[in-house]
Amino acid sequence: MVILTLNCGSSSAKFQVYDWDKKEVLGVGIVERIGQEMSNIEHKPLNKNEFEESGPCHDHKVAIEWIIKTILNKDHGCIEKIDEIKAVGHRVLHGGEIVKQSTVVDEEVLKVFESLNHLGPLHNPANIQGIRAAMAVLPEVPHCAVMDTAWHQTMPAHAFMYALPYDWYTKYNVRRYGFHGTSYLYTAKRASVLLGKDPAKTNVIICHIGNGASMCAVKDGKCYDTSMGMTPLEGLIMGSRCGDIDPAIVPYIMKETGMSGAEMDTAMNKKSGILGITEKFVDRRDIQTGCDNGDERCILAMEMETYRIKKYIGSYYAALGHVDAIVFTAGVGEMNPNYREKSVGGLESMGIKLDDSKNKASSTRNCETCISADDSEVKVFVIPTDEELVMTEDTYALMNGTYDIHTNYTY
Amino acid sequence: MVILTLNCGSSSAKFQVYDWDKKEVLGVGIVERIGQEMSNIEHKPLNKNEFEESGPCHDHKVAIEWIIKTILNKDHGCIEKIDEIKAVGHRVLHGGEIVKQSTVVDEEVLKVFESLNHLGPLHNPANIQGIRAAMAVLPEVPHCAVMDTAWHQTMPAHAFMYALPYDWYTKYNVRRYGFHGTSYLYTAKRASVLLGKDPAKTNVIICHIGNGASMCAVKDGKCYDTSMGMTPLEGLIMGSRCGDIDPAIVPYIMKETGMSGAEMDTAMNKKSGILGITEKFVDRRDIQTGCDNGDERCILAMEMETYRIKKYIGSYYAALGHVDAIVFTAGVGEMNPNYREKSVGGLESMGIKLDDSKNKASSTRNCETCISADDSEVKVFVIPTDEELVMTEDTYALMNGTYDIHTNYTY
Ligand SMILES: Nc1ncnc2c1ncn2[C@@H]1O[C@H](COP(=O)(O)OP(=O)(O)O)[C@@H](O)[C@H]1O
Ligand SMILES: Nc1ncnc2c1ncn2[C@@H]1O[C@H](COP(=O)(O)OP(=O)(O)O)[C@@H](O)[C@H]1O
Repeated sequence: MVILTLNCGSSSAKFQVYDWDKKEVLGVGIVERIGQEMSNIEHKPLNKNEFEESGPCHDHKVAIEWIIKTILNKDHGCIEKIDEIKAVGHRVLHGGEIVKQSTVVDEEVLKVFESLNHLGPLHNPANIQGIRAAMAVLPEVPHCAVMDTAWHQTMPAHAFMYALPYDWYTKYNVRRYGFHGTSYLYTAKRASVLLGKDPAKTNVIICHIGNGASMCAVKDGKCYDTSMGMTPLEGLIMGSRCGDIDPAIVPYIMKETGMSGAEMDTAMNKKSGILGITEKFVDRRDIQTGCDNGDERCILAMEMETYRIKKYIGSYYAALGHVDAIVFTAGVGEMNPNYREKSVGGLESMGIKLDDSKNKASSTRNCETCISADDSEVKVFVIPTDEELVMTEDTYALMNGTYDIHTNYTY
Repeated sequence: MVILTLNCGSSSAKFQVYDWDKKEVLGVGIVERIGQEMSNIEHKPLNKNEFEESGPCHDHKVAIEWIIKTILNKDHGCIEKIDEIKAVGHRVLHGGEIVKQSTVVDEEVLKVFESLNHLGPLHNPANIQGIRAAMAVLPEVPHCAVMDTAWHQTMPAHAFMYALPYDWYTKYNVRRYGFHGTSYLYTAKRASVLLGKDPAKTNVIICHIGNGASMCAVKDGKCYDTSMGMTPLEGLIMGSRCGDIDPAIVPYIMKETGMSGAEMDTAMNKKSGILGITEKFVDRRDIQTGCDNGDERCILAMEMETYRIKKYIGSYYAALGHVDAIVFTAGVGEMNPNYREKSVGGLESMGIKLDDSKNKASSTRNCETCISADDSEVKVFVIPTDEELVMTEDTYALMNGTYDIHTNYTY
């Protein structure tokens, strides 16, 4: 039985084809630049060479047709017939307080997601387009929405409520939801394995530092707090998102510049973060190069981003009282030793001590390691995340009637 | 030589009369409900009974005339002639990036403050009104502005910059400024004394928890980071201010409700915080009573507020690397053991351990104590703040030509 997972962004669609019986990834790839003049697809099938192709692709439906065509191709595909695919799992950012866990999608569920687009303006519309397109291309199989927010349902009220007028919560669903849930579920469980501890007795702090970045305080194996909020804007400094700021800045800048609320939202989501500070870069590899060349803005950006991560580590350390391990994951977390060193350096008084050479050695994807010193009370791990695996398993569990928000798969 | 200090809020004016030569507070008091139908004044003169009076007081000028009349009164006053007052020190919230330290006020300085009203809408206009009124009533003496922000000038860029478009900083002065500076200066120095350490080698975390509340990370005796930001809205949960939220909530709620930016600003400053959560209380004494009676919203409010303080303690602990002491000050910090217990309880893994009975015993103003256990690595102090003393000394130092932002008075 084969499960296809899809993670649709506004201009990209990541896919993975998984053979449930063999527990094997058959193929994995991405379509990029959807809606632009020229798009391209990459596909890495198991035991075959990587395939790449350019072509026009003006919407998500075309993208998904392209994906299906590619994975079915005799030479560079990974399955033989389309009906081998028994279910599709879609990543969905936001279900508000209505869809709180992964679920089989029907028209009603799609309507709910659509009604919540304002809570995830960068992600939800694309997620929905992807689902609709995939349902059109693969109408015979169940489509499941795997929620980024499901993992975070265990947060206590004092962590998820804002100190805003109470009826903004009851009327407008203003609260902390949290995202990157599939990544946290996977890495939290892997951390327990590396620690040799029962997950239900494990406290970890996870730093998911990719283009989007957030952190999670995991208490007794469950989400206790997280840095992203009602939307994925709050918390850490990201590629183009500002993270935490004085909220009074919003009306102030609107008044000074005449910008509308929507324009302000765009500025905070797309023109801020690393891009705002440097006025040129979004990708942390460019920041690293800039720092190496003494570029002041790049140095400031790296200092700011890692200082924010360090402050959240301290804050979740205090929230949890006891911490077994700190985990780094996602692009930057997995591959950049400098970011990690700056984020946890100098925390010896909290029992956190890096092993410099192990840290430096860990700079590629797919390398799960412990980078703390042998005598570090708190372990520091690099754990490559596997969101697709969790999506696949959620999808299987939904079809199998065994799903709960902390699916008991062992990673 | 006598120095008068004034701390003018929108509807109140706190005053203190200080004899510099005798190092003695001659009188201290407050005018409340300025601009309402009936106002009242309280004055506690040295070695005399407290005096209280009601009367009409429609603006700050009338308030200051009332103060002068009161402190000159034969029976319940504290000085004999008005010309004993040689200078007036005024608390001023915000000088932006222009007035960065305490300064003698002239028309030009007032114009600068006026141009910055938007950065401190709840405070600056009242501060300016107070200065103008006092200059009219006491035209012969120098008036000094004692800046809340001066103490915070030592913050490094990675702590004071936001990850927003860089030109919002250069064009609109968007950065972290920090407030409660006089309180931090005083309590940081007292903490060094209690620790028996050189202030320049002392790291402390100060929790100023009054109606307005903020925290400060002090490194080597100087401000390294603070929770309030461009305005006093950011950071901790306060009486009616929300503190940290997802900034995306601002445009979202504006769109959902049709509120303007100014209305949103008011909602976040005046209808949020403890008031927003409980929908009835601002004063933490009411929250305490509510908690004692099992009121769910009051319990939530206290949980949220102290959880936020705890997270900031962790965050500044990480930022500083090493912490000598945690200091509680201002109304709630000085007088409520429950808030303190909830804020630092469970932090033994960070070397912080309260002495429960000492903590409980410390519940009145004017009682400087150590409330940590004898074997606590990090000391916990309650230090009653004395902002008026710092204001007085800044004023004296300005007249004397010896002022710097970390005036070398020993407290
Ligand atoms: N060697 C590296 N050093 C620093 N950053 C890197 C490195 N490799 C990748 N990155 C960063 O990782 C980010 C992408 O992270 P990833 O988790 O793959 O993305 P996403 O958040 O979009 O899922 C890129 O923006 C890039 O800045
Ligand atoms: N015993 C107490 N328990 C809890 N809170 C108290 C107590 N006494 C005073 N407070 C709180 O202190 C706050 C005032 O703090 P203070 O530092 O005096 O004020 P401000 O911030 O206005 O200068 C009040 O809002 C009140 O909630």
